[in-house]
Amino acid sequence: MKLRSRHLLGIKDLSPEEIQHILDTAESFLEVSGREIKKVPTLRGRTVINFFVEASTRTRTSFEVAEKRLSADTFNITASASSLVKGETLIDTALNLEAMRPDFIVMRHSEAGAHELLARVCKASIVNAGDGAHEHPTQALLDAMTMRQRFGRLAGLKVTILGDVRHSRVARSNIHLLKTMGSEVTLCGPPTLIPPGIEALGAKVTYNADQACTGADVVMVLRMQLERMKTGYVPTLREYAKLYALNPARLKLMHPDGIVMHPGPMNRGVEIDSRVADGPRSVILDQVANGVAVRMAVLYLLAGGEREESAPEAR
Amino acid sequence: MKLRSRHLLGIKDLSPEEIQHILDTAESFLEVSGREIKKVPTLRGRTVINFFVEASTRTRTSFEVAEKRLSADTFNITASASSLVKGETLIDTALNLEAMRPDFIVMRHSEAGAHELLARVCKASIVNAGDGAHEHPTQALLDAMTMRQRFGRLAGLKVTILGDVRHSRVARSNIHLLKTMGSEVTLCGPPTLIPPGIEALGAKVTYNADQACTGADVVMVLRMQLERMKTGYVPTLREYAKLYALNPARLKLMHPDGIVMHPGPMNRGVEIDSRVADGPRSVILDQVANGVAVRMAVLYLLAGGEREESAPEAR
Amino acid sequence: MKLRSRHLLGIKDLSPEEIQHILDTAESFLEVSGREIKKVPTLRGRTVINFFVEASTRTRTSFEVAEKRLSADTFNITASASSLVKGETLIDTALNLEAMRPDFIVMRHSEAGAHELLARVCKASIVNAGDGAHEHPTQALLDAMTMRQRFGRLAGLKVTILGDVRHSRVARSNIHLLKTMGSEVTLCGPPTLIPPGIEALGAKVTYNADQACTGADVVMVLRMQLERMKTGYVPTLREYAKLYALNPARLKLMHPDGIVMHPGPMNRGVEIDSRVADGPRSVILDQVANGVAVRMAVLYLLAGGEREESAPEAR
Repeated sequence: MKLRSRHLLGIKDLSPEEIQHILDTAESFLEVSGREIKKVPTLRGRTVINFFVEASTRTRTSFEVAEKRLSADTFNITASASSLVKGETLIDTALNLEAMRPDFIVMRHSEAGAHELLARVCKASIVNAGDGAHEHPTQALLDAMTMRQRFGRLAGLKVTILGDVRHSRVARSNIHLLKTMGSEVTLCGPPTLIPPGIEALGAKVTYNADQACTGADVVMVLRMQLERMKTGYVPTLREYAKLYALNPARLKLMHPDGIVMHPGPMNRGVEIDSRVADGPRSVILDQVANGVAVRMAVLYLLAGGEREESAPEAR
Repeated sequence: MKLRSRHLLGIKDLSPEEIQHILDTAESFLEVSGREIKKVPTLRGRTVINFFVEASTRTRTSFEVAEKRLSADTFNITASASSLVKGETLIDTALNLEAMRPDFIVMRHSEAGAHELLARVCKASIVNAGDGAHEHPTQALLDAMTMRQRFGRLAGLKVTILGDVRHSRVARSNIHLLKTMGSEVTLCGPPTLIPPGIEALGAKVTYNADQACTGADVVMVLRMQLERMKTGYVPTLREYAKLYALNPARLKLMHPDGIVMHPGPMNRGVEIDSRVADGPRSVILDQVANGVAVRMAVLYLLAGGEREESAPEAR
Repeated sequence: MKLRSRHLLGIKDLSPEEIQHILDTAESFLEVSGREIKKVPTLRGRTVINFFVEASTRTRTSFEVAEKRLSADTFNITASASSLVKGETLIDTALNLEAMRPDFIVMRHSEAGAHELLARVCKASIVNAGDGAHEHPTQALLDAMTMRQRFGRLAGLKVTILGDVRHSRVARSNIHLLKTMGSEVTLCGPPTLIPPGIEALGAKVTYNADQACTGADVVMVLRMQLERMKTGYVPTLREYAKLYALNPARLKLMHPDGIVMHPGPMNRGVEIDSRVADGPRSVILDQVANGVAVRMAVLYLLAGGEREESAPEAR
């Protein structure tokens, strides 16, 4: 099966079958990172530009590891270093990168829409590595992969997303993916951090964390940006933690097999209690490991995937 | 044919035959970037240090792409990160790099003469990736390659260099190359931005842009450094654009087959009008693509080129 | 012979036999950097993360060169770019890196103890690339390699370490290594820069540089951190140079075959006179070349070394 688009701009462009296919492919790539020689020749001689206009060591490193394990040649360009600072437009920068004939441009950008712009002018495959508060599709895919590993399915899962939903591209991409795959999504956070009208995406909303955690198969805790305090979204960290942190008491309210997720980096003692983060039901580090496999799968499939002679299993 | 020097310090050290040979070799490398596997084993196991004491993502990335497509191992060292900031002399830094046995040091440095200094103490091949307002030889070579692709020759071409000639290493290297190859060069800009006595290099000078564009085969527009305004070289951007921008009216004055070049990044609406930059006679993105090929050719030839058994065509 | 630990945290964990073995292995890797194709397939497909929480272009580049010459896949993460700045704990960052399944984490960190922390939680081999004022084991190993090349032995050598011993991890790792291998170590510097009680490590202390240099086989000059002036450790640079710089007069006091070392970057005219630094008895650049070989040896041996079929000589 081949993906319909040669870009990955957002989860909302993917069909349930495509999501399934990416996750299946990612599972088959997972063992590559466990080998002594962690490398397959899949993308040998292909050029990948990691163009990060907003800093993110974590996501950039995960992509770079994925790319090198596929044997691609990788190039890192960051915003402060890029000529964007000299006043060049994004489209000019993109066309300049494109002229060097990359096969992929993996972009992190603070503006929603920047990736669509690139996709319109570039022959390279554009991969969205996070844009403003809009989409972060590979994060949602790795989250889904992690849930599926534990439960064998996404359909019918009760997933609670807890925290600063308003500013979170992680939340948004996850809602799209989980609704597409038939999960039940509940959003929970202080009213100032839940955007009005978000129920339209098909998620339930509650401002009560105990209620949101009760019976949940998955609680995905979002990072509290500490700068939100200054702007008045949240009164104090201590009060936030009391009302919304995932702590052992709320963990007990979850389904007995329920799992705990966090996209990282964690503020221990703010949105998540260390006993929960480090406990047996935390799959937070599985998320990181799955991130590399999902990104390998995405790049492999966008490069044509099945059109290659060797199926991924036969590499 | 073998280059006489193992360094590329400036265009003024190259004979017409050497320039011709570099451009021919670059043409043969151009197709590598069009392949699915964009890679030849030419420089496998060779070490290239990209030592950028002045920031330039654009040039650094072009070199790095060229190096990796030749299968070299590349290392990026930038000024702010380098121990130069700890007060070490350039020559000590160079000797330290040299002790790691690089095959090439590609250096961008704000001082003219820095490259000659390195060439004197290093066994590695030194490649000038731009120095102060003095030379930027690979830029001139890629510009020449772009002109030759359109016109089949450089001899007799009427080339106008338009803008801030005073502060431009691009202009200087281009004048050297174009005069060596028999082109007719006209320099044009406000009197404050044309250094007195530059006619000695063999170029005509005019302060009238209409006149400079009339009948030109090539107009190479230079970037207006916006900080020039502060230092009084130019009264206002608006006035500069009126008097010196390449706009549709001036484009019409050129030879009907004439082409438009710009080394990037462009200030649209300042030195170049968007209708010109994006029009059918603009070869600005060809310049970028040719940049990778020229840099591959330079590294290949400096590494010995013909001394290798396999000719570039047979790779 | 196999190293007992899979980490290199400090010299003080190594037996004399292990040190000997690392130096022997490094000698065998030295010729790789002299080849045209400077590359062996030893660590192909292995992942090395260079995690530098304190800037050091020099050490980071030396490791990166060593890694790529062993064919490893390398990833550079620096502090300012890392999510440490977002308030994540070091242990969380380490576990995140670990989840991407690196084979090695090479870390520079300003806190002694940071490496032990990583070694406790990571499956990857941890290599200490310098920590606070505590240990810098690969520097001590490359220094020992350089001495052994000149004298054929370490036992019985008279080694003087001259300068700011107080703030120097280089000094500390060297004292450990040299005492382990049977050298006689003398420490010399102004009383403010020699920590009280350091004799307990088995080194003699003197505050008189002439006396310290007299008869020495090796004088290892330490870098004077210029910021020490501000904090009152040293009255003026001029006075420091007069009392403690290695100058031609003090060089004459050394053993006639004695050699001069410096870990770089040098402050010429402060702790070392240029006539000495550039003279025939200086082995400062040999230290840099040996640094690459020592780091290759350390990575090779930590990865299992002899467990591989091919001995290092047979690569």
